[in-house]
Amino acid sequence: MKTDVEIAQEAVMQPITEIAKHLEIPEDDLELYGKYKAKISLDYWNTLKNRPNGKLILVTAINPTPAGEGKTTTSIGLGDALHKLGKKTTIALREPSLGPCFGLKGGAAGGGYSQVVPMEDINLHFTGDFHAITTAHNLLAAVIDNHIQQGNALDLDVRRITWKRVLDLNDRALRNIICGLGGKAHGVPRETGFDITVASEMMAILCLTSDLEDMKKRLGNIIIGYTRSGRIVRAKELNVTGALTLLFKDAIKPNLVQTLEGTPALIHGGPFANIAHGCNSVMATKYALKMADYTVTEAGFGADLGAEKFLDIKCRFTGFKPNAVVIVATIRALKMHGGLAKTELGTENIEALKKGMTNLAKHIENIHKFGLPIVVAINAFPTDTENELQELKTLCESMGASVSISEAWAKGGEGAIDLAKKVIEAAEKPSDFHYMYDENDTIKNKINAIATKIYGADGVNYIPAVEKTIAELEAAGLDKMPICMAKTQYSLSDDQTKLGAPTGFRITVRELRISAGAGFIVALTGNVLTMPGLPKKPAAENMDIDINGKITGLF
Amino acid sequence: MKTDVEIAQEAVMQPITEIAKHLEIPEDDLELYGKYKAKISLDYWNTLKNRPNGKLILVTAINPTPAGEGKTTTSIGLGDALHKLGKKTTIALREPSLGPCFGLKGGAAGGGYSQVVPMEDINLHFTGDFHAITTAHNLLAAVIDNHIQQGNALDLDVRRITWKRVLDLNDRALRNIICGLGGKAHGVPRETGFDITVASEMMAILCLTSDLEDMKKRLGNIIIGYTRSGRIVRAKELNVTGALTLLFKDAIKPNLVQTLEGTPALIHGGPFANIAHGCNSVMATKYALKMADYTVTEAGFGADLGAEKFLDIKCRFTGFKPNAVVIVATIRALKMHGGLAKTELGTENIEALKKGMTNLAKHIENIHKFGLPIVVAINAFPTDTENELQELKTLCESMGASVSISEAWAKGGEGAIDLAKKVIEAAEKPSDFHYMYDENDTIKNKINAIATKIYGADGVNYIPAVEKTIAELEAAGLDKMPICMAKTQYSLSDDQTKLGAPTGFRITVRELRISAGAGFIVALTGNVLTMPGLPKKPAAENMDIDINGKITGLF
Repeated sequence: MKTDVEIAQEAVMQPITEIAKHLEIPEDDLELYGKYKAKISLDYWNTLKNRPNGKLILVTAINPTPAGEGKTTTSIGLGDALHKLGKKTTIALREPSLGPCFGLKGGAAGGGYSQVVPMEDINLHFTGDFHAITTAHNLLAAVIDNHIQQGNALDLDVRRITWKRVLDLNDRALRNIICGLGGKAHGVPRETGFDITVASEMMAILCLTSDLEDMKKRLGNIIIGYTRSGRIVRAKELNVTGALTLLFKDAIKPNLVQTLEGTPALIHGGPFANIAHGCNSVMATKYALKMADYTVTEAGFGADLGAEKFLDIKCRFTGFKPNAVVIVATIRALKMHGGLAKTELGTENIEALKKGMTNLAKHIENIHKFGLPIVVAINAFPTDTENELQELKTLCESMGASVSISEAWAKGGEGAIDLAKKVIEAAEKPSDFHYMYDENDTIKNKINAIATKIYGADGVNYIPAVEKTIAELEAAGLDKMPICMAKTQYSLSDDQTKLGAPTGFRITVRELRISAGAGFIVALTGNVLTMPGLPKKPAAENMDIDINGKITGLF
Repeated sequence: MKTDVEIAQEAVMQPITEIAKHLEIPEDDLELYGKYKAKISLDYWNTLKNRPNGKLILVTAINPTPAGEGKTTTSIGLGDALHKLGKKTTIALREPSLGPCFGLKGGAAGGGYSQVVPMEDINLHFTGDFHAITTAHNLLAAVIDNHIQQGNALDLDVRRITWKRVLDLNDRALRNIICGLGGKAHGVPRETGFDITVASEMMAILCLTSDLEDMKKRLGNIIIGYTRSGRIVRAKELNVTGALTLLFKDAIKPNLVQTLEGTPALIHGGPFANIAHGCNSVMATKYALKMADYTVTEAGFGADLGAEKFLDIKCRFTGFKPNAVVIVATIRALKMHGGLAKTELGTENIEALKKGMTNLAKHIENIHKFGLPIVVAINAFPTDTENELQELKTLCESMGASVSISEAWAKGGEGAIDLAKKVIEAAEKPSDFHYMYDENDTIKNKINAIATKIYGADGVNYIPAVEKTIAELEAAGLDKMPICMAKTQYSLSDDQTKLGAPTGFRITVRELRISAGAGFIVALTGNVLTMPGLPKKPAAENMDIDINGKITGLF
């Protein structure tokens, strides 16, 4: 078997100017980053904005398992297949983060014959968007500590600075630090820490913003901490929102690349799917919808987190309305949901499959609750048996979802032609899209709606500290925002060991955080690690580059 | 008066492809970053390498004062003037750092009508080189802490990890931190801190390296700390040199931009001029020398630090041999060296000028010791009087240096035509270039040579800890490298209050650090702040960008 990086390196890429021509983007509106990457200018929006939107296809998945689902691979394969069928198509995806690339994953740009290229660049610094976030985030942090050092005119409470620092790396030793040591000239000592860049609220802002003016407003609204008398302090009080926005002048522009088969792909932004909303930028999606007849995009984690937030947060903020939803599943993963261990997936087991299919069934039910047509994409593995596939098809069809077996990984677009045809069909169906809750409802009612309707919980518990925060937010008028749930991605519940479709459980909200710049309230049901660590043998140890620039070890 | 950013924004830039044509770089060897920036491919070196080198002009200065000298402005103006005179010219400069840009300086890309453009991009993320350094540097740090966390097989002494972390920001609160707090899952607590990215040894490495293979070797040789038994530990023992090099795959390529007058400029790398050697990358200079008849480059701080290191470190490592040296001075700055306060510079004062000219005279004497022809460039100010200028000219000519008054700031290349003619003349003169010391001499002899011949010191004192380090380095065979002096830039001595040309002093070496990857020994004569702080009102507060992307507040 060839590795992903080998397949990617063998690909003959088209100059990105050719890909842009296919979308009729004038060369003057392209800002090239080498021959195979480009940003699209902000000015070009003036040409696009009065065009009608194309169709929007959201790709989501069952709750992830160690067996792997292949959501990105399926998104890319589907895009390639639509392209092959003569549809003007754009794929809109998240940018991968460097931390996991050097940690466990070793790269993330699809797989097999469904990849976006140049995968080495996309996986490394790409066009510098994440570095811009890191810099702006840390500039604000430096300005906060400088403000304290220079006299603390705002009377900031050093115990309640909520704005931490970020790096786009997995570095557990930075999770909890004490800064400002060394004496009077070197700052005021206080406890703080680093998150990974994708967890920065500025990443969420970049991904929800619509232009530089909106960006500046959102950056200014970030809550950075509290005064000693308990007043909320926002970033704008530090007078650097102009400078922060300046740092995003290029990062705000969507990045254009291509798939192995030359389908245009906009890869832009990549917020966490727990403490943030987990999908690519609004900028990329809005450009894509105007430029193409079909936009294929994906949401992070399973449909309970990724799709719910895509629909309740991103669509609400923008008016986007998906025409169809693809739910990716594998026979293997469903059998894990049915209780099998990873080593037991190689042989037919209808019993386990049936048990695990409850997970998929719940997600189908949920997406129907949003009023959207569904296609289930079964990402094919050689170990899948005819009986298993038939069992799965029967379930989906009985629930009114069409089904297709995707071989995008092994065959690229050719392997997803049937899926594409079913998606075209589904997207023609009438839909009745609506959100899961009213954003002007109370915080508890909003969380309750998600928990009961989407997760299948009986209700929601709140620890006392959260009750207090809710009261504070209501008093401060900060409660009328959508909810961003931070919950384990492995289960529909908040207990990652509960696979399939658990019932008879309540979820517990343990913390609320306000992303006032991004515009949502984060409800945490457990500890969310916002700075990952490196494993015993980091993926970085396998990576190399020779004197001619040939790269190995990305996969 | 127009601000620098206003002048820059009014400039009509040529597409960078046109600038490249002027240097006969094939379009295929350009990697565009937008329309006005490009990297030049590594492959292109194969075309260049057998060409003869053009002439190399080093621009340096007197010891800096708060009055300002205008070294970069003069370098750019000189380049423009050579270009105007029909010489095929390239300017090779350092990339500015974001930290000082948001702190005090608000930008650094020349000034007035002698600027490199697009100045906004050059001053912000540019082509991402510094971000690559930040990422690679911090990846190595994360891998070190992960190694300790995962069992510490190398038996690293957590009290003696010398590899810190970096950010390209002024952030004093990160100078001294304790990381690894929060319990067993979150690392091993230890003292560490952050430097600014330009102080990273990886910056020095990027600026001294000649290709990816050499880069990998140097990165592997970095000393990251000591084992508990006192053995030196190098980066290569952590098995990530391939991954680190990978992160530099684009950063290693020189960046091509242009001046306001369309002269090609290679802006690449920017190491500290105290703990590192303070000049742009070897890659940029070696490409420039092959592509142009005249390469104008500059060195950091005054000639005692910048030029000395350029000649003794960069030239030694590469075989570069300058054909002439330009020493930039202003009447105002020399009067400050003569004892005047900044408020007293507006009126004629021959006495103070004569006293201050001793500083310039010492630098002329020093560059002659290196065997190189000199042109003194007097960066003109409206307050300069005819008598003062005549006084200065007489001194320089009596010392065998030609003199020219440069009006590059106000007039661009036109203001430096006379300077350019004198530089051409000087560069035709025979020279007898040699280093100040033999790198195989003892550490003390090398430091002594610099201190006595260049600084005019009577000798060198070493504190006992340094004596111990010298013995250790000799025992480890790490003493046969050039010396990189870290000393105040404001005085020829190690006491920043001693202006002019002090005599009767000794310098004191207080610390030695080994940059084994870069390949030099740093001798520190005082505390060098490797992480600056922000001032009371950071320059960032003046910066803004409007909805159309128009930037204000960079200067």
